[in-house]
Amino acid sequence: MSRIVVTAAAQLGPIDRAESRESVVARMLALMEKAAARGCDLIVYPELALTTFFPRWFMENQAEVDTFFERSMPNAATAPLFERAKVLGIGFSFGYAEMVEEDGVLHRYNTSIVVDKAGGIVHRYRKIHLPGHKNNEPWRAFQHLEKRYFEPGMEPFSTADAFGGKIGQAICNDRRWPETYRELALRGAEMVLIGYNTPVHYPLAPEHDHLQCFHNHLCMQAGAYQNGMWIIGVAKAGKEEGCDLIGQSCIIAPTGEIVAMASTLGDELVVHDCDLDRCTEIRANIFNFRLHRRPEIYTALTATDPV
Amino acid sequence: MSRIVVTAAAQLGPIDRAESRESVVARMLALMEKAAARGCDLIVYPELALTTFFPRWFMENQAEVDTFFERSMPNAATAPLFERAKVLGIGFSFGYAEMVEEDGVLHRYNTSIVVDKAGGIVHRYRKIHLPGHKNNEPWRAFQHLEKRYFEPGMEPFSTADAFGGKIGQAICNDRRWPETYRELALRGAEMVLIGYNTPVHYPLAPEHDHLQCFHNHLCMQAGAYQNGMWIIGVAKAGKEEGCDLIGQSCIIAPTGEIVAMASTLGDELVVHDCDLDRCTEIRANIFNFRLHRRPEIYTALTATDPV
Repeated sequence: MSRIVVTAAAQLGPIDRAESRESVVARMLALMEKAAARGCDLIVYPELALTTFFPRWFMENQAEVDTFFERSMPNAATAPLFERAKVLGIGFSFGYAEMVEEDGVLHRYNTSIVVDKAGGIVHRYRKIHLPGHKNNEPWRAFQHLEKRYFEPGMEPFSTADAFGGKIGQAICNDRRWPETYRELALRGAEMVLIGYNTPVHYPLAPEHDHLQCFHNHLCMQAGAYQNGMWIIGVAKAGKEEGCDLIGQSCIIAPTGEIVAMASTLGDELVVHDCDLDRCTEIRANIFNFRLHRRPEIYTALTATDPV
Repeated sequence: MSRIVVTAAAQLGPIDRAESRESVVARMLALMEKAAARGCDLIVYPELALTTFFPRWFMENQAEVDTFFERSMPNAATAPLFERAKVLGIGFSFGYAEMVEEDGVLHRYNTSIVVDKAGGIVHRYRKIHLPGHKNNEPWRAFQHLEKRYFEPGMEPFSTADAFGGKIGQAICNDRRWPETYRELALRGAEMVLIGYNTPVHYPLAPEHDHLQCFHNHLCMQAGAYQNGMWIIGVAKAGKEEGCDLIGQSCIIAPTGEIVAMASTLGDELVVHDCDLDRCTEIRANIFNFRLHRRPEIYTALTATDPV
């Protein structure tokens, strides 16, 4: 039986701070209609897809920060996505700022979900590698306050049985860390969905700004090849509130090859027939983990004190 | 004080089975003279630099296999390298098949050493990730019997204080595994020396043969960037005993950029001024391990049973 998942990377152009969730969802629905018309099984939207990338601003008032968070999923603004996808028979994934009460305490995460063709949320992932900083640093052209506004995900990497295979998720900065891909692959992931918001300008080392697109692809291509997995990398792109975000959303084969890539910085769809059976070419051979990895030697990887 | 290590990647062309160690050492010396004339501090030769890549043949007679091994280092054949390097004031590194008696038992390893400018062996590394297979598989165009002829290295990855910084080593297949770079970086490595013998043809998945050069660079570039380290990747290249080996020996900056690359499949030197202080651009910022890694989450990485 074929395990081809026709998959769309649905890049979003910039979202202004004033743009409503309803307006963004309308844009997402337009891409979903296109994906369905192209026969897609799955459409993947970026990190924090429903609003502007708000960690770029320091806000003293928590109530203001909280306007960017979702209290439930689905909710009134996103229900049309769930409803239309079910009618179209297409699965989807997107990121959002999640606010949730657990054990009587409010938690806030940078979260992403996978919804299957039947309309059910089959996987939820809370970002493990939060980049940026905690305090206002006015010297920066813009802030990157993920470490202030979110708690780091505390659940291990995991996969969902969906679309005929094992699907994993990661979010933005996670994709720079080889541990992300390996944790997912060791848990059987065959396709990893990764949304991102990545400024061209990196205030701590601006001499690397011209390498942002290279680094984006380098990490995801290596992650795909070294683990024999499909990777769907999806950007929020373009000039958002004066901040330039990279695009080049892409679909990467288990060989590490980029097989589809966005060519604009706006709302754009790229599609590929992703055959999950092709993971075997890598994972049964060159990267047969059972035959060739040396976990007993990797003592530094999980040491919590410096070696 | 400057921490620039002027480094040469000294690619070797093919070595026939009948070529003597003395002949190979003469070729290595020619490259060393060139490197010294160019002001190099360090010259890096490939894996198993002294002989042909013998694991491509199944040999029933262990005495025949053992002719490819070195019983001591330096020895008569390699002494000229050590002597000339000391006179020239240049450090060097090369790989060889090591036979050693420990606790009354003979061991055989795929080994690489670093020799400092004073002529002392300051680091020895025994290959941890042995590729290939144990038994003769006549259906293959050639064998890859590293798992038969070598024991896997049992010592953890480590670094040496040399050339003003921390130098690590890996060998060939090690470079495909992200754990290699991370283990070395967590132990402070600023430059990693990696020799390789990589056939174009991979019998288990020949449909990937056209990607060999891409995969070679992809793994090393990702390893360099994701760990903020210099990587010196050095091939034995060209048609050796009928087997085509990839070249593209290269020097990779901590940004992941290839900054020097061989353009032939023969004996060839490429040189770059490697500033070890540039590792900080990466390791103090985007990949500040202490601030951003999540070792407590990486439970699958070192699990010895499947998750």
